Amino acid sequence: KTKTDLETEDSPQKSEKHEKKLIKGNSIEDGKQMLEWMLTPFPVEEFFKKFWEKKPKLIKRGDSQDIYKSLLSTEMINTMLKENYLEYTKNIDITSYKDGVRETLNPEGRATTPSIWNYYADGCSIRILNPQTFIPAVYKMNSKLQEYFHCMIGTNVYLTPPNSQGFAPHYDDIEAFVLQLEGAKHWRVYKPRSPKENLPRISSENFSQDEIGEPILEVKLEPGDLLYFPRGFIHQAETVEGKHSLHITVSVYQKTSYADLLEALVPAALQRAINSDVRFREGLPLNIHQVMGIAFSENDSPERTAMREKIHSLFERIFDHASVDDAVDQIGKKYQIDALPPYVSKEEKQRTVYGEKVVIEDGNIRCPFEMTYETKIKLLKANILRLVDEDESLRVYFHSDNSKEYHEYEPTFMEIEEDDAPVISMLVNEYPKFVAVKDLPIDDDERKLAIATDLWEKGLLMTNVSVTDYE
Amino acid sequence: KTKTDLETEDSPQKSEKHEKKLIKGNSIEDGKQMLEWMLTPFPVEEFFKKFWEKKPKLIKRGDSQDIYKSLLSTEMINTMLKENYLEYTKNIDITSYKDGVRETLNPEGRATTPSIWNYYADGCSIRILNPQTFIPAVYKMNSKLQEYFHCMIGTNVYLTPPNSQGFAPHYDDIEAFVLQLEGAKHWRVYKPRSPKENLPRISSENFSQDEIGEPILEVKLEPGDLLYFPRGFIHQAETVEGKHSLHITVSVYQKTSYADLLEALVPAALQRAINSDVRFREGLPLNIHQVMGIAFSENDSPERTAMREKIHSLFERIFDHASVDDAVDQIGKKYQIDALPPYVSKEEKQRTVYGEKVVIEDGNIRCPFEMTYETKIKLLKANILRLVDEDESLRVYFHSDNSKEYHEYEPTFMEIEEDDAPVISMLVNEYPKFVAVKDLPIDDDERKLAIATDLWEKGLLMTNVSVTDYE
Amino acid sequence: KTKTDLETEDSPQKSEKHEKKLIKGNSIEDGKQMLEWMLTPFPVEEFFKKFWEKKPKLIKRGDSQDIYKSLLSTEMINTMLKENYLEYTKNIDITSYKDGVRETLNPEGRATTPSIWNYYADGCSIRILNPQTFIPAVYKMNSKLQEYFHCMIGTNVYLTPPNSQGFAPHYDDIEAFVLQLEGAKHWRVYKPRSPKENLPRISSENFSQDEIGEPILEVKLEPGDLLYFPRGFIHQAETVEGKHSLHITVSVYQKTSYADLLEALVPAALQRAINSDVRFREGLPLNIHQVMGIAFSENDSPERTAMREKIHSLFERIFDHASVDDAVDQIGKKYQIDALPPYVSKEEKQRTVYGEKVVIEDGNIRCPFEMTYETKIKLLKANILRLVDEDESLRVYFHSDNSKEYHEYEPTFMEIEEDDAPVISMLVNEYPKFVAVKDLPIDDDERKLAIATDLWEKGLLMTNVSVTDYE
Amino acid sequence: KTKTDLETEDSPQKSEKHEKKLIKGNSIEDGKQMLEWMLTPFPVEEFFKKFWEKKPKLIKRGDSQDIYKSLLSTEMINTMLKENYLEYTKNIDITSYKDGVRETLNPEGRATTPSIWNYYADGCSIRILNPQTFIPAVYKMNSKLQEYFHCMIGTNVYLTPPNSQGFAPHYDDIEAFVLQLEGAKHWRVYKPRSPKENLPRISSENFSQDEIGEPILEVKLEPGDLLYFPRGFIHQAETVEGKHSLHITVSVYQKTSYADLLEALVPAALQRAINSDVRFREGLPLNIHQVMGIAFSENDSPERTAMREKIHSLFERIFDHASVDDAVDQIGKKYQIDALPPYVSKEEKQRTVYGEKVVIEDGNIRCPFEMTYETKIKLLKANILRLVDEDESLRVYFHSDNSKEYHEYEPTFMEIEEDDAPVISMLVNEYPKFVAVKDLPIDDDERKLAIATDLWEKGLLMTNVSVTDYE
Repeated sequence: KTKTDLETEDSPQKSEKHEKKLIKGNSIEDGKQMLEWMLTPFPVEEFFKKFWEKKPKLIKRGDSQDIYKSLLSTEMINTMLKENYLEYTKNIDITSYKDGVRETLNPEGRATTPSIWNYYADGCSIRILNPQTFIPAVYKMNSKLQEYFHCMIGTNVYLTPPNSQGFAPHYDDIEAFVLQLEGAKHWRVYKPRSPKENLPRISSENFSQDEIGEPILEVKLEPGDLLYFPRGFIHQAETVEGKHSLHITVSVYQKTSYADLLEALVPAALQRAINSDVRFREGLPLNIHQVMGIAFSENDSPERTAMREKIHSLFERIFDHASVDDAVDQIGKKYQIDALPPYVSKEEKQRTVYGEKVVIEDGNIRCPFEMTYETKIKLLKANILRLVDEDESLRVYFHSDNSKEYHEYEPTFMEIEEDDAPVISMLVNEYPKFVAVKDLPIDDDERKLAIATDLWEKGLLMTNVSVTDYE
Repeated sequence: KTKTDLETEDSPQKSEKHEKKLIKGNSIEDGKQMLEWMLTPFPVEEFFKKFWEKKPKLIKRGDSQDIYKSLLSTEMINTMLKENYLEYTKNIDITSYKDGVRETLNPEGRATTPSIWNYYADGCSIRILNPQTFIPAVYKMNSKLQEYFHCMIGTNVYLTPPNSQGFAPHYDDIEAFVLQLEGAKHWRVYKPRSPKENLPRISSENFSQDEIGEPILEVKLEPGDLLYFPRGFIHQAETVEGKHSLHITVSVYQKTSYADLLEALVPAALQRAINSDVRFREGLPLNIHQVMGIAFSENDSPERTAMREKIHSLFERIFDHASVDDAVDQIGKKYQIDALPPYVSKEEKQRTVYGEKVVIEDGNIRCPFEMTYETKIKLLKANILRLVDEDESLRVYFHSDNSKEYHEYEPTFMEIEEDDAPVISMLVNEYPKFVAVKDLPIDDDERKLAIATDLWEKGLLMTNVSVTDYE
Repeated sequence: KTKTDLETEDSPQKSEKHEKKLIKGNSIEDGKQMLEWMLTPFPVEEFFKKFWEKKPKLIKRGDSQDIYKSLLSTEMINTMLKENYLEYTKNIDITSYKDGVRETLNPEGRATTPSIWNYYADGCSIRILNPQTFIPAVYKMNSKLQEYFHCMIGTNVYLTPPNSQGFAPHYDDIEAFVLQLEGAKHWRVYKPRSPKENLPRISSENFSQDEIGEPILEVKLEPGDLLYFPRGFIHQAETVEGKHSLHITVSVYQKTSYADLLEALVPAALQRAINSDVRFREGLPLNIHQVMGIAFSENDSPERTAMREKIHSLFERIFDHASVDDAVDQIGKKYQIDALPPYVSKEEKQRTVYGEKVVIEDGNIRCPFEMTYETKIKLLKANILRLVDEDESLRVYFHSDNSKEYHEYEPTFMEIEEDDAPVISMLVNEYPKFVAVKDLPIDDDERKLAIATDLWEKGLLMTNVSVTDYE
Repeated sequence: KTKTDLETEDSPQKSEKHEKKLIKGNSIEDGKQMLEWMLTPFPVEEFFKKFWEKKPKLIKRGDSQDIYKSLLSTEMINTMLKENYLEYTKNIDITSYKDGVRETLNPEGRATTPSIWNYYADGCSIRILNPQTFIPAVYKMNSKLQEYFHCMIGTNVYLTPPNSQGFAPHYDDIEAFVLQLEGAKHWRVYKPRSPKENLPRISSENFSQDEIGEPILEVKLEPGDLLYFPRGFIHQAETVEGKHSLHITVSVYQKTSYADLLEALVPAALQRAINSDVRFREGLPLNIHQVMGIAFSENDSPERTAMREKIHSLFERIFDHASVDDAVDQIGKKYQIDALPPYVSKEEKQRTVYGEKVVIEDGNIRCPFEMTYETKIKLLKANILRLVDEDESLRVYFHSDNSKEYHEYEPTFMEIEEDDAPVISMLVNEYPKFVAVKDLPIDDDERKLAIATDLWEKGLLMTNVSVTDYE
């Protein structure tokens, strides 16, 4: 049975096992296990085949209602608010939906517990926008899932008082997994209203009840239950008398479609075509503005036909200049910028720069560990970095220094020489296997050490042995 | 022989003839005549066939050296500087090119005559960036030419002291017509250095003498001479001992190529494709980031091939959603924003809103002229407006209120109803013929009057009779 | 009888007389004559003694109703709007005051005549905010007046349809002269409501009729009439049946009180005191925050008394470090920045840099006039420049290059050496007398020429002879 | 002997004692004890009498070198850098001073340990700009000291490799306490060079060795030693062969002089004088610009004397309108904005809103503790809030929600009614004594509870009993 402990630091017994796992560890597999835990007992493969981007999936928990308990509780929210500085609008929304009217009631400034509980007592819903920034268990879950989905993992927490609804019916632009934590909530889910709203790229406005038709699914979620529905599926939920509801929604695959890939691919291909083929750069015919344009669209002239054909023939030449690899790398770069910092276990930490200690001798400060040709290395996570060819240089984007707060710091990357690119490619392709520094695919031996050291210092590599106890 | 008087307001005798011409007048023809005057005696058609975008063309003037005299003189520059507030960098550049070093020496603030003539005495060249803003004859020439070329007409004036050169060899991103006004200048023109620099989209940096090869043309320009060369052709010019040089360069067709059209067409087509075809909006496969990307480009896997084919098939579908008319209208919209205000002769003015007078009666202010169903109207200029479909509405962009200073005011447009679009189309297609208000292609009679009045009030229409003397 | 021709360029006969006057001319006297013309036949001295800043003054014109006619007419407004680009809000306001409700109805964009006359026909008032920018006669009047008042001269034009009122009762922060141009308007003026609103520094909000008491003056203004009232006096005006009204309001002395001088003087004096006297820089006593503060203001402790006395003694020392001259120069600097460009007559122009011509010889460009030791010079206007000691340097601020549009260009000044300051002081103190360059109070002869040339090139000086005809 | 434990959370035995202390506790006394601990065994009173703002004071530690050890160590810096995101320039400076040249070598981006230790190995000094943000012991020390000094407490940490100097000689604008933590450093201190540089308001530029004269103090600081010197005293320090140095500088009283008070007092008094006394608002005399100004400063005219006297008499009237209380409150407001959040011990926390827990019953969320008329309250810290009269309202500024990062959040205040001000005054004046809610000086009983609840919810109050265990 799949297990994922989101709460406690690992005990010593587990540590040893963990250590072995670490050697062969694959962060994509870890991410998949996290999803298996969420969906358990439903198989992940079947989920992708039958439900993903197609239709809702409900998993009732039955007797193991505590499964998601360690993620979050109302008590933990109370403590989080007292110990951190959360702001309305940036971190917290106060919402209500009464008699068909949806309101956001955010005041300005810090979200303090007295003010939050006052709103709650008045029947308002509380939405926490980025719990992963403040709640370690949520951060750990998202950090693992992002390795599997290779996209930003969003989470929102919703706390709703009895007998109320916080939001109007609407659809979102993401694949949604609703995990019920406390209390209960009555859900209704509706099909997309038209092909245009199938797998939409932006969320809808709020709908009124008469715009959405009949639900295809009605269900009461109780602790431990999970409900999935694709983007474009309209939904609403309300609590019942005498019971509150606390749930967390995990959202994935925002802006991760073929459209997003083509938006990166096509303009770049057009620019390359223009630069290399003079036919694209020739001046437009002098009379074009007297022939083409909507004011002339009723005219059925041979000039119009010829002009359209000329344009079409140029269009078709564009794809000859397209680079799919570069476009995928642009999506990959966005991931590096959006991602949470990697979750690093105690055992992993001891094999990274984060585990290094310093020693002072005669006033000099020394780190005992030093990379050698024999040191074996692997990427800290499968997706910890992305090699990108842009602005006429090669860049390695990475997210080891990202903040738990979305985009708090500037994107981080290192520029590398073309000769060094095979090192990055090898580390990416060999993962999760270790590679000895001496085996890096580059002629210059000193360069091998230099690159490995550089990557390691940025927190992108793990060594096969612990550096903490190194002398 | 072609004649174009750029200097004086028209005399009464000419006025009568002008008035007849006005009725049949066609601003595109007027613009072509202006170009004919510039190129005279060389035929315009032959020029476009043999030289335009292909190679330089020299026209020596011989005995009619005064042809361009009314455009500009050094004395007129002196007066212009005293009577207007020109600023260095914005309106005037001070440049020098000595011993292979090109410098711009602009101080800050107003360009006063004492400081200008001091720089000149020190051997610097003076470049006036937008003489059309301050010199009526240059404004008149450009305003007419823009109707023919349907693009922004740039002009720069260059005043160079004896025995000097103001600029390093370089090429520009525009088709250039050099009109020599005073003194003399020795020119050298060179072919583009490579196919990539043929018809380039951006101007070059400064070249050193050993980067540019041998000139294909060497010539001394004297007053009245004209030299044309296409974008991408490198050029340099210097004055000789004891003689200054004053010339004006007319530049056209900046950013007016098929590339510019495709840059408007392709992204719009992609967005339409995405919105209407769900296959574009499906999520990317989970494993794409382990298969595609430059780190994987050496791998020759079937997944890579399949992925590339899938993308290509989506790409080809994009053109089904392309609208060439809309893209041309976007180029046309840019023209409306960039254009100089139309040159309006005295006779034209009397047939436009600009010629209206007011009368006060019992405290009421009245304009004697009123549009009726019998009033005949035509566009003030062929290209005075452009019908554009954008942001889900129909807009008529126009340039009658533009400033002589580039982009000084916000772009002007009016939104119209879809039902009114045929009116605009008719006026555009019927030009230069007059149309009676009653014949506008629309059902509602009151609406005919309303639209005609609206267009007329914005200065876009001319009536067949004078409104100034209206009672 | 005082005469001021605001409309036409001076005729040849007048020119000769003008030329003599020019030699002795004093721009402050010219400005005073402009005010005399406005107030005629009421004596200016008596006006300042009895009415200025004290109470309203009405001057009925009787049989010379045309006196202000050349300034502006409704027909001139129509033409101005067609020939210039005026924008709502920036240049034009559309206002109404009906049933106690005051509204501003400005649309966006250009103020075209059709839209203006439509608003007018709907009973709205038209306010032109800066007619001096577009109407030469108004510019000429203001430019002369500013030399007398040494402050920015504001003008607003108000065009009101019959039977209406455009503004609610209110008071302004300026001394107002209302000049009736066309039609008629019924005015009511009220005393300041309290000492606090006597000579106020900011204009009031709109009042309702029951907040303002009884008028102290009711009058119908007709063409040629003038009404003056000080800042703080509430006023309102309405037109009658069948008659429109056109008037211009000239406003002076905004922010020109002792308060404005002290606001420049006191902070500067405090900074100087702090810098030179260490007693100001000593740390505050540790307990001050437990003794002083409004939470302690009820406590009657000896510590509080001692603390207050200590502060008072420091305060009194501040004035020892005050410089009244510098503070007045700061007010003077503001004038240089705000002022309209000087009005320069044809005869004056011929004696300034604006009258210089250029000659081309052997490619060299030469200005025939050259300053010599014998050249006699005077300031173009009494207040054309201001010597200011600021930021540890000496600056000469001047307004010869200002735009007719308020603050369109950056403030202009030249930095001078301390040794050159006496030259500026002499020119200022000797005005309106001419001074020979050789007599400038400075040792170095070449420096005399250099400074004189520098000032002359900036348009600040006039020579005793014409430079235009110089060979 | 004074003891201050900066490192560990208090043990249970200590807790009980702590709890008693808490009842009578006075944060100003706590702050003073912190300073006593720093200066021990030198008496604080004597320090302020003889050295504060006057001259340097050295305290050699002798046999208790560990006194400051718990504050910070090089090992703690290594860990801090790995666990937090510190940025160069914002948090860390890399500096060097070699051969008289002072350089800052900050790269961009995150300060990682490998890059820091590389700079250190190259002989650079490391300056940590705000260690209090990241190091709990430093935060605790500063938070306590700020209650005593009532000003922002700055701290900088300096880590210097052997045989080097990181900074050029200079003086600062703050009172400096240097606490040596590890290694050794050789210091030289110099007197202010002139009266103007005595107690300066801004720090100096870097001096060369020949500008600073002879040191008045030379000393080698070793772990546990303290060196104090006032602002304006020039200083420099270098390490010796084979030994590094780590010290922390505590800086106080930046911008806390009479000058700062007068800068708040004088402009406000001037505005009040202008508003209430019409003599300040009268217009300046017309001729002032021909009489006053530096161009006229040599003229010894009676007009000049009269004008200066008039201004002086107005100046003297200004103080009648001065409010010292308001000015001190402005300084106090600045403190609230700049201060670190209060250090709250475990026992204190249990008596504040931070100690409250929540209970869920029937879906309702309840906080068991409720304020009653019998509840006894006191301010959490003496200076936790400041009552300020500004912008025509009464505000209570407070710093309980401030960030440990300087000015990270918006300033926080609550507006109160004038009738409620006595409640704030009472709490401030009665501190450190408790007051029963029922005894608050206000008529309306419900209002008493409301205000007390409001202040308590913002974390400004402590109750006499624990709220954590409340049922």
